[in-house]
Amino acid sequence: MIRCVLPLIAVTAGYLPVSRADELQTTLISVERNIHLTDFTFRSRESIPDCPHPITVRTVRLHGGKQDGVDLLILNNGRMEIVIVPTRGMGILSVRLDDVRLGWNSPVRDVVHPKFVNLNSRGGLGWLEGFNEWMCRCGLENNGQPGTDRFINNVGDEAEMELTLHGKIANLPAQEVELLVRNDPPWRITVRSRVDEKMLFGPKLELSTELSTTAGSNTFRILDTVTNAGAGEQEFQILYHANFGPPLLEDGASLIAPLESVTPFNARAAERVDRFASYDGPVAGYVEQVYLLRLYGDQGNRTRVALKNRKGDRAASIAWSLDELPYLTVWKNTGAVADGYVTGLEPGTNYPNNRRVEREFGRVPRLAPGGRQSMSLEFEIHVGKEAVERLDAQISQLQNGRPADVRRAPDAE
Amino acid sequence: MIRCVLPLIAVTAGYLPVSRADELQTTLISVERNIHLTDFTFRSRESIPDCPHPITVRTVRLHGGKQDGVDLLILNNGRMEIVIVPTRGMGILSVRLDDVRLGWNSPVRDVVHPKFVNLNSRGGLGWLEGFNEWMCRCGLENNGQPGTDRFINNVGDEAEMELTLHGKIANLPAQEVELLVRNDPPWRITVRSRVDEKMLFGPKLELSTELSTTAGSNTFRILDTVTNAGAGEQEFQILYHANFGPPLLEDGASLIAPLESVTPFNARAAERVDRFASYDGPVAGYVEQVYLLRLYGDQGNRTRVALKNRKGDRAASIAWSLDELPYLTVWKNTGAVADGYVTGLEPGTNYPNNRRVEREFGRVPRLAPGGRQSMSLEFEIHVGKEAVERLDAQISQLQNGRPADVRRAPDAE
Amino acid sequence: MIRCVLPLIAVTAGYLPVSRADELQTTLISVERNIHLTDFTFRSRESIPDCPHPITVRTVRLHGGKQDGVDLLILNNGRMEIVIVPTRGMGILSVRLDDVRLGWNSPVRDVVHPKFVNLNSRGGLGWLEGFNEWMCRCGLENNGQPGTDRFINNVGDEAEMELTLHGKIANLPAQEVELLVRNDPPWRITVRSRVDEKMLFGPKLELSTELSTTAGSNTFRILDTVTNAGAGEQEFQILYHANFGPPLLEDGASLIAPLESVTPFNARAAERVDRFASYDGPVAGYVEQVYLLRLYGDQGNRTRVALKNRKGDRAASIAWSLDELPYLTVWKNTGAVADGYVTGLEPGTNYPNNRRVEREFGRVPRLAPGGRQSMSLEFEIHVGKEAVERLDAQISQLQNGRPADVRRAPDAE
Repeated sequence: MIRCVLPLIAVTAGYLPVSRADELQTTLISVERNIHLTDFTFRSRESIPDCPHPITVRTVRLHGGKQDGVDLLILNNGRMEIVIVPTRGMGILSVRLDDVRLGWNSPVRDVVHPKFVNLNSRGGLGWLEGFNEWMCRCGLENNGQPGTDRFINNVGDEAEMELTLHGKIANLPAQEVELLVRNDPPWRITVRSRVDEKMLFGPKLELSTELSTTAGSNTFRILDTVTNAGAGEQEFQILYHANFGPPLLEDGASLIAPLESVTPFNARAAERVDRFASYDGPVAGYVEQVYLLRLYGDQGNRTRVALKNRKGDRAASIAWSLDELPYLTVWKNTGAVADGYVTGLEPGTNYPNNRRVEREFGRVPRLAPGGRQSMSLEFEIHVGKEAVERLDAQISQLQNGRPADVRRAPDAE
Repeated sequence: MIRCVLPLIAVTAGYLPVSRADELQTTLISVERNIHLTDFTFRSRESIPDCPHPITVRTVRLHGGKQDGVDLLILNNGRMEIVIVPTRGMGILSVRLDDVRLGWNSPVRDVVHPKFVNLNSRGGLGWLEGFNEWMCRCGLENNGQPGTDRFINNVGDEAEMELTLHGKIANLPAQEVELLVRNDPPWRITVRSRVDEKMLFGPKLELSTELSTTAGSNTFRILDTVTNAGAGEQEFQILYHANFGPPLLEDGASLIAPLESVTPFNARAAERVDRFASYDGPVAGYVEQVYLLRLYGDQGNRTRVALKNRKGDRAASIAWSLDELPYLTVWKNTGAVADGYVTGLEPGTNYPNNRRVEREFGRVPRLAPGGRQSMSLEFEIHVGKEAVERLDAQISQLQNGRPADVRRAPDAE
Repeated sequence: MIRCVLPLIAVTAGYLPVSRADELQTTLISVERNIHLTDFTFRSRESIPDCPHPITVRTVRLHGGKQDGVDLLILNNGRMEIVIVPTRGMGILSVRLDDVRLGWNSPVRDVVHPKFVNLNSRGGLGWLEGFNEWMCRCGLENNGQPGTDRFINNVGDEAEMELTLHGKIANLPAQEVELLVRNDPPWRITVRSRVDEKMLFGPKLELSTELSTTAGSNTFRILDTVTNAGAGEQEFQILYHANFGPPLLEDGASLIAPLESVTPFNARAAERVDRFASYDGPVAGYVEQVYLLRLYGDQGNRTRVALKNRKGDRAASIAWSLDELPYLTVWKNTGAVADGYVTGLEPGTNYPNNRRVEREFGRVPRLAPGGRQSMSLEFEIHVGKEAVERLDAQISQLQNGRPADVRRAPDAE
């Protein structure tokens, strides 16, 4: 039944499924055209032999346990490997470059198919049953804590619903996924996709994602656009839940950020707000500490934060526009390794309170009918003392001597 | 693992999987025999060459997004194409004949696999996350609005449960599906199936469905039987949620019905009860209006309603017995196209209030142990002014000058 | 994508995937290695021709209805057939030996894939929508009645969640399944597997299961180990829900047990506590009666209970250690055949009250970090009057004249 689009491998044989002469294109998943390539491989050495880096892109279908039926898309730019999960809202399972892995060791070991996740279970915490990605999106109708919120139902009345932790988008499979590879320097590799969060009498939100990198690079970027495809105004929320375990996270690791202010999320977080940017080793029984940050940006309001290891010779950074994502949540969950030793750096349209709370504080953006908002983020892996020192300097420059307001107590809520 | 029953194509070669000499039979899905033909094709020109119309019946497995794993059964009688969804309770996705499509443009674009639907989400409105069929059944244990109702639990006590919108049957996959094709005029094509809604300490209801049409016809019929396979008396509800968007639905389209009475569902519907049978074009922000109708029937208590386009040259009609389905709900939801511009004509054993309410009004039928109730409905697509005028006249004759009671206010409750 | 481990059939050709020279080993499912053999067959006459009994082990993937995607593992030791369901937590669908079947006729006919089960539906009774195994495990975080219980949430606060009937384990697919066959008398056949019930901010429990039998035997045993893979102390519960319908269950069938005490679960059960060990034929409208038993064991605290048919020439028995599973629940649900005529013999760490209740009575064991508890059970099918008389004598010997306390009323609470 699948109309099998020719894989890129065949391109060198003269069957050019190209969108432009200098760009190879193939559709990996398409609901519109009933395409689903579960065993696809692209190799640059066959298709674009001029490329000096051995790029590969593969799709893999997982089997067994709770991962049964999950698709992975494994993109290797010749230096860095990025594992994307189309079945789980285009989340990124892990990234590897040399001895650096972006990711963490969740107690959840399978890449869980959404069919095994009941978001409503456990008082709205069911999302945790599938949570093990390095980076997943939280949203789109809502993200943050579960709990009751108002909505307008089919008869136009205000009704109540139970919002579930971090919303649905990380458990929705992608409808359309395509791969594009440029056949000229710097050989940009792009994965484009669309994930719908739509229903009658509910949100009609579309997430268009684009992840790209270039051959041999240590960076990649995400360009997301959320569109309100409905005819009425629509709230939305998006938060990029990027989670780091070892090797970057360790005793003595630190967060570097151009800090305008930090507020502890609750009394537990307030206990050690002075040390919010420093990490300890795993401690059994550690209860999470969450900090709500405002950052400084450059003249274009673009900012950057990083997680640096103890030695200061390995780091990962995220850069983005504060116009698009004004808030950063830092989630410190440095419990025992067996319980999931992890920290989250989470740029968002909001903080992870229940949407009801965020709305009160004016942190729930609204999209006009047909309206859209784009978010662009750049991720970089920094290897070597010199590279990390440059990163440090760059973030210092963003701070530029401006004061940081460290608040001792959570905001009234 | 699938014991692959010979497809009908092979029949002409002498392998006759026939139930009778004049009838071709093949099993498409069978839980009992572990059969599942996901790529089946029947063509009349190969199997029954005497048939003057090019009948085809195909199964298609969908891939990608939320439709991953869904099966379609596409029946074309040589003139009219009917798309059935075995994975979603034998609902009918769409029907096409000439330039008439029965169906609508739901914000939900995938044919959603039930594994992605949580009926309990959104305060019991999760059903809407998969709702995009032209016609689906609502039931069987309950249909209508979500909310609390009583039931008898395993220890014999009355307990409470949250009923979910429109029940489960539209999100249950068919256990058994077979195709029968008559090899003599008028070459009747029949799809038979069974869908169970059964559990320990719960309903033991079986839905047997039969959809059939004849070669080159503009009509098809559904014959459903609901059986109580349990040893105790059992309530049930069924409602045929037939949904029409463009081209039939448009500014100036109208409902034709032999009306005994119409009651607005709520204050919002009461606003324009005078115009309940007339349709406007899409209006952004339109809040649904629902009308509860009683109809007149002929001497055998059979009735017919229709949706007619503005020009009066295209229409679709539904005929059924008021003994089997005494109530008709008209759902006007003529919001913006992007939000789902649609009207539902919904014959049922009841109105779509929560079952608790319907029970009070005596509109929840009960089946004795082993008891069954059949519902037969005929659907017709009327093309051309003349054909539509004949339809008009036929419905006028059902009205037969009898008075129509248009109530201004909703019933108490 | 599946790295296809050579099936055992190939072993005789010299490709020995053996763990030891005298043991054949093959991996059937592995999440770690992305293996999933859906169409595997092992035949002793090909691989271990010295074995005098025709052992076969097959995997079968089911299709259609709610069983779509379910895997069965069918083990036949040459005399007894055991059907295991890896997709449903390694539950055992049925066992057959001669004219004895262990199993029952649930209203649920499909072997239901967990993707069609919403444990939270129907006030936490959704588990019943898939319940039709001869024996399934209930647990691990909780089992027993649904209802509210406390738990510690991510911010370290005590919060409330709705526990669902009998927990999750019976609806979790196995991550790892391997088959081991000894190539020397008595030709032990072992199925080993692992099922995880793990999440961030929740239990990190692992179930390792081992089911084994020997060629031509009428017995099999289960050796389960539950491990707390988390860094904090963790409660757990496990109950073996073994369910018997005809032919063993019939009017005049009886339970044989070395009884220390029996307490009716509720007033309904109290009505006929005198006859708790005797079974009647199917009675429409029968409301379940549940009895809570303490048993005597031998010097090693091992006990045995049996279900015996009327004639006394067929029986099935379960033997286990009271140190591991101190409690036995007897579930009498001898309603009409159509409603599920069945009795459950259920050894457990607890009785099937809500966990909140069981905790109060000290019946919720706790595992230290890294701690584990093993449960070993032996099942035997007894054919012939003599065999059943020996069984009777054996259980009498366990009773050893010690008194049985038959309580008239349920315990407070």
